[in-house]
Amino acid sequence: MIDDSRFGLARSVTLAGPLRLDGGARLAPVEIAYETYGALNADRSNAILICHALTGDQHVASVHPRTGKPGWWTRMVGTGRPIDPARHFIVCANVLGSCLGSSGPASIDPKKDAPFAMRFPVITIRDMVRAQAMLLDHLGVGMLSAVVGGSMGGMQVLEWAATYPDRVRSAVAIATAARHSAQNIAFHEVGRQAIMADPKWNRGDYYADNDPPAAGLAVARMAAHITYLSEAGLTEKFGRRLQARPGKQDGAKSFGFDADFQIESYLRHQGISFVDRFDANSYLYITRAMDYFDLAEEHGGLLANAFDKATRFCLVSFDTDWLYPTAESRAIVHALNAAGAPVSFVELSSPFGHDAFLLDVPDLNRVVDGFLRAGENA
Amino acid sequence: MIDDSRFGLARSVTLAGPLRLDGGARLAPVEIAYETYGALNADRSNAILICHALTGDQHVASVHPRTGKPGWWTRMVGTGRPIDPARHFIVCANVLGSCLGSSGPASIDPKKDAPFAMRFPVITIRDMVRAQAMLLDHLGVGMLSAVVGGSMGGMQVLEWAATYPDRVRSAVAIATAARHSAQNIAFHEVGRQAIMADPKWNRGDYYADNDPPAAGLAVARMAAHITYLSEAGLTEKFGRRLQARPGKQDGAKSFGFDADFQIESYLRHQGISFVDRFDANSYLYITRAMDYFDLAEEHGGLLANAFDKATRFCLVSFDTDWLYPTAESRAIVHALNAAGAPVSFVELSSPFGHDAFLLDVPDLNRVVDGFLRAGENA
Repeated sequence: MIDDSRFGLARSVTLAGPLRLDGGARLAPVEIAYETYGALNADRSNAILICHALTGDQHVASVHPRTGKPGWWTRMVGTGRPIDPARHFIVCANVLGSCLGSSGPASIDPKKDAPFAMRFPVITIRDMVRAQAMLLDHLGVGMLSAVVGGSMGGMQVLEWAATYPDRVRSAVAIATAARHSAQNIAFHEVGRQAIMADPKWNRGDYYADNDPPAAGLAVARMAAHITYLSEAGLTEKFGRRLQARPGKQDGAKSFGFDADFQIESYLRHQGISFVDRFDANSYLYITRAMDYFDLAEEHGGLLANAFDKATRFCLVSFDTDWLYPTAESRAIVHALNAAGAPVSFVELSSPFGHDAFLLDVPDLNRVVDGFLRAGENA
Repeated sequence: MIDDSRFGLARSVTLAGPLRLDGGARLAPVEIAYETYGALNADRSNAILICHALTGDQHVASVHPRTGKPGWWTRMVGTGRPIDPARHFIVCANVLGSCLGSSGPASIDPKKDAPFAMRFPVITIRDMVRAQAMLLDHLGVGMLSAVVGGSMGGMQVLEWAATYPDRVRSAVAIATAARHSAQNIAFHEVGRQAIMADPKWNRGDYYADNDPPAAGLAVARMAAHITYLSEAGLTEKFGRRLQARPGKQDGAKSFGFDADFQIESYLRHQGISFVDRFDANSYLYITRAMDYFDLAEEHGGLLANAFDKATRFCLVSFDTDWLYPTAESRAIVHALNAAGAPVSFVELSSPFGHDAFLLDVPDLNRVVDGFLRAGENA
């Protein structure tokens, strides 16, 4: 396997397809950018799929090629971590619709020899999962020891268990929901309108001039970013502290419209730096996929119908997460109970709000580690 | 008084000033647009000042000249209401910095014979209150029987009690806070960035062409509007219900980027209709004033120092208000207790979130009516 070019960092594959999408279109070919860590064991029983969030990518534990920053989940994935290349064969793929190498609006439409832009078909969380299943077929992985993810990654985890129950032994869904609420949709719609209001968006056709709707995308990111943090966390981190600036008396208001408060500088930085690593059209498509997500609706209106006894579940929520509050996880637990599926659920305490799943929460590692080991030893 | 042109609907006055502003500038002249309802009684003891919120105006109980809609607080102000022109002399003025007739960025800068635009000085909540005090002097009102307001109106109420304790007998502050939190500032900053990202903003100079940054202002309004509603209220009102549209199967997703969900249409409507009645630069200035508001900071860092025993207070919060949650009102109550000021406080239950103070919450009327009458009979 060592010499097999399918495995390793910074891989990509073009699958012939077609991939039939929930919206009716067929996508062909299907490009998937992904990484693998560790090696499949002899009985192919140690594969773990990691699903990333809205603006995440396949670089779960490797340096991001554009930002130069460490992987986004090195706290969870790596030597001595709950998901460990020494024990596990780890796969993480850029989701369909994204912009780090998998098919998305910035990809070339073979029929036009130009980027799809808004001609890219609207996709769903289930479409993302189907593309991942095609990738696993290509990698020779039938059964997943576990599928693990937080936020939109958790939605994919739930969708994996619902769509391919025979391929998922264990499912770990963190800080997520089985459907997007009206408030969730509302925040995403603000972001989409911010992008579409930017004249540079140009109805999605901005790739030729390499002049993307940066201002609109930055505003979208700023609005979303607030929802990832808790009110208490923001108060602790920033409060009403003023920004130090040359030529300004320390701790004095400027009585102007520059960033006076630290929270303002922080948000502006979040917006501006996001633009360097993310495509505005991908932001439109992926937020749409999340808004469309409603696992119960896909199963006759009853969430319990989505689940099978074949998979064991671990659900984790955070007490300060107001984007996908604990009640959303509880609703999933109730459905799993009704379906007779084994489930362990815990609400963890953290000051970090929704972002807690990405941050230093030792209890999260203990919970995931214990759950995975119990499944492996069963 | 009936023939006195100072009194009545749709009044305005140009006061010579200068008004010394917290930022150091002097504003002269000072235009104030206002309305009065009812008549001052013989001992001038029945005056009530009503303070409006961020996007409110002086038309508290009269038809809005641009939208043709009824006044914004006819549930609270009117015949048979807690604030009743038959008993009270009611004053409501457009705040400094706004766009309904009081001095603001759209006003003509006499030095340039052109709109101030961003040359208008940055103002504070205290500056707004000072302007109101100048108006009351002009109207011959010394002591206020009560000053009443919700949201930013509540901030003005607190500021009135702190700045002019000898002129306020009773203060009613609803759904408000004594300072803006990091999260509050963050949401406002998103709105400001949305406006400033719109090329039509043109650094504030858009009045000559009558081509304002409508797209940016609409996005700002959408983001803010989410914070005015509760998650539960949004779920109850919209849930995940899809928009009916011609040519689309009922209840089916469009797999496109038009407004599919009812919450999307609703938000878009909120954004677009706001643009017709509000000036983008005013939105920048007033949100800045709110973000700067920190009553404790104005009084040596201790909120209790802001208050005097001379004024009696009524504070009301709503259990689903996450913009200015009950904890913010409690902090004010504790400071009032420390200051020895009489205070009654109640958290009301309502599904409407922050907007509850404007909506049909019968308990709110009972609380305000009881509090005002007790003060008048004392």
